[in-house]
Amino acid sequence: MKETRKPLGSSSLLVVGSVALDSVETLKEKRDEVLGGAASYFAAAASFFAPVRLIGVVGTDFPRAHEELLAGFGVDLAGLERVEGRTFRWAGRYSADFNNRTTLDTQLNVFQGFRPKLPGGWSQSPFVFLANIDPVLQLDVLQKAEKPRFVACDTMDLWINHARDNLLKVLERVDMLLLNDSEARLLSGRDNLPAAARAIRAMGPKAVVVKRGDAGALFFHDAGVFAAPAFPIETVADPTGAGDSFAGGFMGWLAHTGDITPSGIRTALIIGSALASFCCEDFSLDRYRTLDLTAIRERFTAFADLVHFEKIRF
Amino acid sequence: MKETRKPLGSSSLLVVGSVALDSVETLKEKRDEVLGGAASYFAAAASFFAPVRLIGVVGTDFPRAHEELLAGFGVDLAGLERVEGRTFRWAGRYSADFNNRTTLDTQLNVFQGFRPKLPGGWSQSPFVFLANIDPVLQLDVLQKAEKPRFVACDTMDLWINHARDNLLKVLERVDMLLLNDSEARLLSGRDNLPAAARAIRAMGPKAVVVKRGDAGALFFHDAGVFAAPAFPIETVADPTGAGDSFAGGFMGWLAHTGDITPSGIRTALIIGSALASFCCEDFSLDRYRTLDLTAIRERFTAFADLVHFEKIRF
Repeated sequence: MKETRKPLGSSSLLVVGSVALDSVETLKEKRDEVLGGAASYFAAAASFFAPVRLIGVVGTDFPRAHEELLAGFGVDLAGLERVEGRTFRWAGRYSADFNNRTTLDTQLNVFQGFRPKLPGGWSQSPFVFLANIDPVLQLDVLQKAEKPRFVACDTMDLWINHARDNLLKVLERVDMLLLNDSEARLLSGRDNLPAAARAIRAMGPKAVVVKRGDAGALFFHDAGVFAAPAFPIETVADPTGAGDSFAGGFMGWLAHTGDITPSGIRTALIIGSALASFCCEDFSLDRYRTLDLTAIRERFTAFADLVHFEKIRF
Repeated sequence: MKETRKPLGSSSLLVVGSVALDSVETLKEKRDEVLGGAASYFAAAASFFAPVRLIGVVGTDFPRAHEELLAGFGVDLAGLERVEGRTFRWAGRYSADFNNRTTLDTQLNVFQGFRPKLPGGWSQSPFVFLANIDPVLQLDVLQKAEKPRFVACDTMDLWINHARDNLLKVLERVDMLLLNDSEARLLSGRDNLPAAARAIRAMGPKAVVVKRGDAGALFFHDAGVFAAPAFPIETVADPTGAGDSFAGGFMGWLAHTGDITPSGIRTALIIGSALASFCCEDFSLDRYRTLDLTAIRERFTAFADLVHFEKIRF
């Protein structure tokens, strides 16, 4: 990439979450300590559409080249603290079909003592995404954010099991929760996904998006349900970050259009699905190095064709 | 149901497959020796759209009421042999989320010596479905069928592992194979579904439909790929027969319209998905007792809404 990316829109999108060094094993390849973390993937995907403000923490070992890559995407890193110590590390291995992954190692490192700090003016960010971190930190950011227009959050089994009270406080204050199917079942105690989504919506968020990996995502809200397919790609290299790219594409588009109606959200979810599909095509954030709006447009059109059928009458 | 169902179309649809007595356990309920079998579900689903000719075998213990139910759906049972002995039996138990099932018992019984016989005129059936049975029997029916317009078949891991040569002979002669994702991986030796479908299409069938349960189905063909979602229903009672109902709705609609272009097939797959969703709402074929075209039309429209998003330009 030669120059800093200019996003389509101008409404700021704040994200708080992890910036990590990932070690990833697939059947074919192994990569050590590459750029990862939910906030990194989210920011890279959203950067096509909105000015992204990233809040996170890295250690003194975090390569400058990674910061430069994110900055080149146009991501504002004024909220990325660099503190003494080692960067958050994650290591995992995927099954042959990529539908299962085993976490081999997690080292919180500098993330352990992390407290989000908002640079001047960032408390006025109309769109906010609370990536998968301790609900205490999500609440902290929520308290600092001044009347955001739309807030979405992610979570995981760890917080559902061990920080449920704080998570419930977060849920009371967000517009949308994104989580995967097993997390939706765990949080709600319901096996059936529509029933699980109904139970979760009763906890606060008006809308729930259940992410199902290569089975796509389901968006549940007052007025019904929307199924966003995953794009069937033959060239999956590494699905790490696909869910965060999905969220990034989604929130970026929402910030760009400002349309938070169910109809606007549907389109945004397809943009998110497109970004998730690109993310899987290479390791780390590497696909984002060459990705451009033309390719995103083409995949959006391909999504329209993927689900198209004639609305016959009979 | 008061009177025999009249299908929308007049092109005959031949199905060969199992008619069974199923014992099904879910988290909430248990049903013993209810009407089941791939051909039963297929025929019930297809009966709304096409005159169905069923080839199968039952034992002397098969309740007349089951035959009467199928006959009431308008299914022609001239090809359903009744022979000395016990009917094929299957017993299984579902996991709480219905995504896994354990086979508790399989008794082939009269199915063991089964050889398909076609009543007079049935060799001229323009649409043929070979449900999941021994490929030897599928080949037998294929040899008797005179220039059918469209032939689809199903299979399972047992035949892929133990009757591969005969299965490959079947695949050379069918237009479409329907199978689930694990079977597609097993048959092709490929983990990636688009790659698996490509490999299977090289074995003969121009089109492959990969069934993924509540994740929907993918249709792969020369001109691309189509994703049919599963309908998210809160009232799943028993998913037994959903895949066969999917095939039945699909083939029935295809026979009705005669449109075997990719566009016609897409619509037919949504009709199949609608029938599969209804099938899950009750045990055995019980949902078919009250199901009517009005409800099918409504669900078809609901499918259109389920995947709808604005085709914006950017």
